[in-house]
Amino acid sequence: MNPKEIRRGAAPVRDRYVLAGTAHRRWNREELAKDAEAWIAWLAQYGGEEGGGVTRLLYDKAWQSARAALADRMGEMGFSVRADRTGNTFGRLEGTSGNPGAIGVGSHFDTVRSGGRYDGAYGIVAGLMAADLLRRLYGPPVRSIEVAAFCEEEGSRFPLAYWGSGSLTGARTHADIAALKDPEGIRFPEAMAAAGFGREDQPEPCGTDWTHYLEVHIEQGPVLEAEGLSIGIAEVIVGQKRFAFTVRGSANHAGTTPMGQRSDALAGAAAMAVALEDMALLNGEPLVATVGRMEVYPNTPNVVPGEVRFTADVRHSDGEALEAFCDRMEERFRRIAEARGLSLESSLWVNTAPVPLDAVLAAKVERSALACGMKYRRMPSGAGHDAQMIQAVCPSALVFVPSRGGISHSPEEYTAPEHLAEGVLVLTDLLYKLAYEVRTT
Amino acid sequence: MNPKEIRRGAAPVRDRYVLAGTAHRRWNREELAKDAEAWIAWLAQYGGEEGGGVTRLLYDKAWQSARAALADRMGEMGFSVRADRTGNTFGRLEGTSGNPGAIGVGSHFDTVRSGGRYDGAYGIVAGLMAADLLRRLYGPPVRSIEVAAFCEEEGSRFPLAYWGSGSLTGARTHADIAALKDPEGIRFPEAMAAAGFGREDQPEPCGTDWTHYLEVHIEQGPVLEAEGLSIGIAEVIVGQKRFAFTVRGSANHAGTTPMGQRSDALAGAAAMAVALEDMALLNGEPLVATVGRMEVYPNTPNVVPGEVRFTADVRHSDGEALEAFCDRMEERFRRIAEARGLSLESSLWVNTAPVPLDAVLAAKVERSALACGMKYRRMPSGAGHDAQMIQAVCPSALVFVPSRGGISHSPEEYTAPEHLAEGVLVLTDLLYKLAYEVRTT
Repeated sequence: MNPKEIRRGAAPVRDRYVLAGTAHRRWNREELAKDAEAWIAWLAQYGGEEGGGVTRLLYDKAWQSARAALADRMGEMGFSVRADRTGNTFGRLEGTSGNPGAIGVGSHFDTVRSGGRYDGAYGIVAGLMAADLLRRLYGPPVRSIEVAAFCEEEGSRFPLAYWGSGSLTGARTHADIAALKDPEGIRFPEAMAAAGFGREDQPEPCGTDWTHYLEVHIEQGPVLEAEGLSIGIAEVIVGQKRFAFTVRGSANHAGTTPMGQRSDALAGAAAMAVALEDMALLNGEPLVATVGRMEVYPNTPNVVPGEVRFTADVRHSDGEALEAFCDRMEERFRRIAEARGLSLESSLWVNTAPVPLDAVLAAKVERSALACGMKYRRMPSGAGHDAQMIQAVCPSALVFVPSRGGISHSPEEYTAPEHLAEGVLVLTDLLYKLAYEVRTT
Repeated sequence: MNPKEIRRGAAPVRDRYVLAGTAHRRWNREELAKDAEAWIAWLAQYGGEEGGGVTRLLYDKAWQSARAALADRMGEMGFSVRADRTGNTFGRLEGTSGNPGAIGVGSHFDTVRSGGRYDGAYGIVAGLMAADLLRRLYGPPVRSIEVAAFCEEEGSRFPLAYWGSGSLTGARTHADIAALKDPEGIRFPEAMAAAGFGREDQPEPCGTDWTHYLEVHIEQGPVLEAEGLSIGIAEVIVGQKRFAFTVRGSANHAGTTPMGQRSDALAGAAAMAVALEDMALLNGEPLVATVGRMEVYPNTPNVVPGEVRFTADVRHSDGEALEAFCDRMEERFRRIAEARGLSLESSLWVNTAPVPLDAVLAAKVERSALACGMKYRRMPSGAGHDAQMIQAVCPSALVFVPSRGGISHSPEEYTAPEHLAEGVLVLTDLLYKLAYEVRTT
């Protein structure tokens, strides 16, 4: 089968989306953009706030209504709908080949507090749009398609992330969440039960039959916009180390302590922050290093600071390079502390290895991007995504579209409708190749 | 008269304090040290806390009991005692010459919250000890001596400092305090009334007849200790400028924002803090510059900081040099911000000119230090003191003794008893010269 074989009865769809010729690259992106924008606005109703932000924390009321609305809408569109015990919700189009596998596609529908409309939501919306379009144009897929709406990825309510996709792969289990509480003291299992999940009669989340997993997502960074590109193809999700440093000197009177007799913890910490930025710039991409948090004690204008605590977040797609850089950073910080008569303590509190995504599937994404005439690049993903969990059980792909100003986790998060359409189009082409252009022998 | 003419009946005092010969330098410092230590411990009872700190905030219970105890003790020692409307309390030894002037000597008895035992207290104690010793050895002074216990200097309860000495000179008036509230919302005049002061029938604080004012104080800095000296003679109280700076960049994802595409407000602020320290070291003493407070927004480990607010406290004994340095600092910060694509706002919220103390009186202090065989130096005072207020109405002197580790405003504040004794001894010699070696013609 190929895109030219549009099924009978699909005329309204064809007339709307398929311009001269039938290759996906010629489809009417303006119509796709309108649809994508409408979908995003629809899902943003649930948990939407004045000022444009969205808050859907795991199992809260907004989360519950968004999940129910997604399930209803999947049903109306002709997907067969199921949810698992965690609240992960799936809409499936059964394949005609009898082949047991399915192509998974989706993302998560929880958000950070006062987050944006696109993070996670777009991956679900794009999956539904692509699967629906293909079905309406070409009939049921040869291989099954399953659109996943994962219950949780952000770690915003409880101190655990990837509850949805991690439960699917077995990386997260009930034991991980049994003792967790949210900031109001509500226990994770109670919150789950209050939302109608966690019951023993509900199916366990493990056991997907996916042969591939496809996730489109906003970039949450400025690279695609800055380079004028439409599509980013993630090759690897970066490894990450987060350190907490404590610099101790002597808190002294800011008026009576000569410059040469100070042990100024803030001056030392500032020198470390500047040194870290220098080292990261010198090292070059894709390494990034960030001092994001800094607390000064006693934090009084007329007292030389006696203690400063700060964090360093370092990421790199190459685990060995990450390790080596962090060793150099610690050594550099130690020399700065020594030279200034300060003490330095460090502790490593996040340490995740890079996750390479499937290279063969990335090459397929690239061919679809080319087929659709997109400007694209390969890149690492500096943020974590559901795809990095699913990659442990099947080849997974992660496809980015531009984020305006690189802004995310904010009401300011925005992706232009034409970029939303371009992501949907590439996903449609890819899904067509994986679910329709399949040998049925 | 000279130190050899010890009055009849003074034998017990002489035997205890006056070793071979009668010059003050030969006095028994061990006995003076014991006395000074006992006096400090006595006053520290009022507002004393577990762990060794002292809290006597203006007009609080501890302040009230300390004031009453000081007045009682002055009376027992034979001083004629009076208090003014603010609670400033004075013990006077009337001179025999009929000369209307008096030599003022003292300091303040309020403290910061959980402050030390010496700050302020030592100046009162030293004044009482010196005046008492002189009277017991040599009889009443030729020129009157008045020991002042100022009600307030720290600005720790209400947002106003130098209420005691400033009221005396007219630099502070009721209009300044009428609207002020403490952190609990108590109005300044109510607090004053609750402590038994502020009544119209009480004498107004202005109108001292002092011809000179002498204040001994702990250094609150590390210079004397580091240089192995006993006495510091302040020539000037430094001028001070405090700035608040706000650096704004863009808060972005720490994983997805390449180093070259960041506007990291913290990296910028850190570069400014490091630059300020460099500039201050290069400029040399007596300039000091301190970034004491820094607040980071959103202050999250995985977010590139979008905004940082910090203070800079700059002090110098030379007003023009202070001005010029601050201009260079602001220019340097502006260049750093520009180079990094950050915006910078600054506001000047404290701006006090240097106060030169009386040079003739400083020379007298120096001669007393020499006469007592002390190792001393002249130096600026990096902190503010009552002497800077009184200097506006009469020649004033400020004499420092070493602070261990330069620590002050802390329960760790400490001055060794032998240093307390040395300060008392210099003050005694000086007071002798000003109040006893006076031509009575």
